[in-house]
Amino acid sequence: MSMKKKPVTGMKDILPREMEIRDYAIGLIKETYKRFGFTSIETPAVEHIENLSSKQGGENEKLIFKILKRGEKLKIDEAEKEEDLVDGGLRYDLTVPLSRYYSNNANELPGPFKALQMGNVWRADRPQRGRYRQFMQCDIDILGEPSILAEIELILATSTLLGKLEFSNFTIRINDRRILRAMVDYAGFGAGQGEVDYDGIFITLDKMDKIGLDGVKEELIKDGYEEAVVDKYLDLFRKVTPDVEGLMALKETLADFLPEEILSNLSTIMESVDAAKEADFRMAFDPTLVRGMSYYTGPIFEISMDEYGGSVGGGGRYDEMIGRFTGQPTPACGFSIGFERIVMLLLEKEFRVPGSAEKTAYLIEKNMSGENMKKILTKAKKLRAEGQSINIVMMKKNKKFQKDQLTAEGYTTIVEFFADRDVEE
Amino acid sequence: MSMKKKPVTGMKDILPREMEIRDYAIGLIKETYKRFGFTSIETPAVEHIENLSSKQGGENEKLIFKILKRGEKLKIDEAEKEEDLVDGGLRYDLTVPLSRYYSNNANELPGPFKALQMGNVWRADRPQRGRYRQFMQCDIDILGEPSILAEIELILATSTLLGKLEFSNFTIRINDRRILRAMVDYAGFGAGQGEVDYDGIFITLDKMDKIGLDGVKEELIKDGYEEAVVDKYLDLFRKVTPDVEGLMALKETLADFLPEEILSNLSTIMESVDAAKEADFRMAFDPTLVRGMSYYTGPIFEISMDEYGGSVGGGGRYDEMIGRFTGQPTPACGFSIGFERIVMLLLEKEFRVPGSAEKTAYLIEKNMSGENMKKILTKAKKLRAEGQSINIVMMKKNKKFQKDQLTAEGYTTIVEFFADRDVEE
Repeated sequence: MSMKKKPVTGMKDILPREMEIRDYAIGLIKETYKRFGFTSIETPAVEHIENLSSKQGGENEKLIFKILKRGEKLKIDEAEKEEDLVDGGLRYDLTVPLSRYYSNNANELPGPFKALQMGNVWRADRPQRGRYRQFMQCDIDILGEPSILAEIELILATSTLLGKLEFSNFTIRINDRRILRAMVDYAGFGAGQGEVDYDGIFITLDKMDKIGLDGVKEELIKDGYEEAVVDKYLDLFRKVTPDVEGLMALKETLADFLPEEILSNLSTIMESVDAAKEADFRMAFDPTLVRGMSYYTGPIFEISMDEYGGSVGGGGRYDEMIGRFTGQPTPACGFSIGFERIVMLLLEKEFRVPGSAEKTAYLIEKNMSGENMKKILTKAKKLRAEGQSINIVMMKKNKKFQKDQLTAEGYTTIVEFFADRDVEE
Repeated sequence: MSMKKKPVTGMKDILPREMEIRDYAIGLIKETYKRFGFTSIETPAVEHIENLSSKQGGENEKLIFKILKRGEKLKIDEAEKEEDLVDGGLRYDLTVPLSRYYSNNANELPGPFKALQMGNVWRADRPQRGRYRQFMQCDIDILGEPSILAEIELILATSTLLGKLEFSNFTIRINDRRILRAMVDYAGFGAGQGEVDYDGIFITLDKMDKIGLDGVKEELIKDGYEEAVVDKYLDLFRKVTPDVEGLMALKETLADFLPEEILSNLSTIMESVDAAKEADFRMAFDPTLVRGMSYYTGPIFEISMDEYGGSVGGGGRYDEMIGRFTGQPTPACGFSIGFERIVMLLLEKEFRVPGSAEKTAYLIEKNMSGENMKKILTKAKKLRAEGQSINIVMMKKNKKFQKDQLTAEGYTTIVEFFADRDVEE
């Protein structure tokens, strides 16, 4: 009765060294957000197929692992399409389950509801290096808080966490979806052409870091926009500095297109975070920051790390989405941490979990007397109660090899016990 | 676009209060076993359908949530039975994945391999009160250690954990599958009847705590065994005391049917645990302890708790199973903790997570100045850095109701900040 030894395609077994870092990071995340007043929640891995197919999931809805109906409900003979065969699926994100959770349990939850959800999600993506079909997501959301207190606390908590994981010198870039739109309006993209294709323009703008101002200009002109409009638009980006001054300099320029409060709120977020931050990082205003998801309605933010080319987390305000799901309008702001990327970075920089340095191995010779064994176990008990890690193992014939292996596993102290010698208490 | 608000049938949303206890228990489990030299591992939730259908899973194989094939592999028109439609399933236990993990990664794992695996499993069981279709299992196994050091360390580590969760006065009952068999042999069940149906007799014996000695006798006789044989068998149980003395008293009686070493090993386990235990509990020899799974080959044990009618965990030695899976004979011994039962018991006795008592809420009046806001955030930063939990929330119109709610959520200190008063640094 032999079995398939490899995990299913695209999923992985997690080895002890990575697990030590994952466990540490998970513990630290729970601990840190708890100090900021967040409560942790859990939702089932399996979700109604209807909820997963509600179009909120975008492309992810094509990647669902679907679950076969069971018992009498499964009618293979009559089935014509997938929908006839399945009634559930593995969740592809934590947003759909959060919305369902909130509407199911709202009466029992505090208001505002500050939720931390960590859990695996599944996507039947094309397998590729470093991307897996099962991976951990970590979402932090504040539901029911319309003020910028939500943004400030989310950024403070998340940056504090990264600091504790010994990341420094990172940048949290911030923008606002309404500034993005006002800049488009100011440039006159819509003039006489009916409805403005904001999302189309943002998709091009989002490429700024790759193709530069000239590339963006070229692409926008290719899309049919007038050069004068495009130039007026891009001039805005040329002038703006990535700080509060740059942000507030937009006040006069965009006066006709944007309530001033939106700019001053963003500057309050930046200044408050700077004043009360624990970690070593900087806030930057980035008028080119778009963030893909069209459900954002206000401030948006993203963490950039020099050590890693891309983003390790981001989020923003999405005041409309929960209401669309639940029928109950609910202001919401959230942060999603790239847990797997952070673990990868910690592994790459050979991060040492605090306290993992004092690992001790006891090597026990065969035929140890019962009395000696009790003394050894009692010794270990005392040190374990003090928080030390003691691994008791039987001595092998090739002791040198065994000791080398233990050293390689991180055991800094190896104590040998022999059957013919009394163990000191 | 409304959604189904309830979780899928038989699965549950976990609310903040239960999550606090779960998170604490998970952290404590990882921490405690780490001190005993265990490393934590993780396997994917999805397993090859072939591995889940290998007959090792017994009845659980009928309860698999099966996963639909994707893309071109799914041929609904040609499908005649379930097997044609699926290629994976959600794991129903952690034993199958552990076996696969061990055979897949043996070269990179220490020997012996001391593994802690915590994770959800799924069974499409008939929904009933307190039993869910997704639940957490917690398995601790030592692979590659043939000596009773494995049993001793597993029992010490697990009892230490229960002690830290403030359980006391529990009993760990111990027996050995080979003693069970020797007692059957001694009584003469097999005499002249061909192969002895050990498992059948054990199923009856297992009912001892419910139907008593007389009930067991009646049932065995009904099964066709001679009264003299049954009496000889049950006399053994009448005489044995639940301690090392009772165990060693079997030495002479079973001399022809059992190597003495098996009894003395069991007594060494009991005495070593008693000498080096940290928690307040007792070890008991229980010759009626059977434990259902027929894969056990040596010592077996089970935790009984007076506060709770049944078992909250158990395990034993299973030297044959890993080899049957992997083709590589591997001695193994494991403990499975009833995580969900333990969480239920902690909830019932209103267990307070240590350190959760000092929760503080800051109530912020609307229109707070930026300067004041910075001072408030800086105050909170200092206390959070010291480990306190500070929840900053906007003051609501109905402040009294808000404060009552916060008190109900466990906030012991509530500090109010008003917009027209300077915040002291």
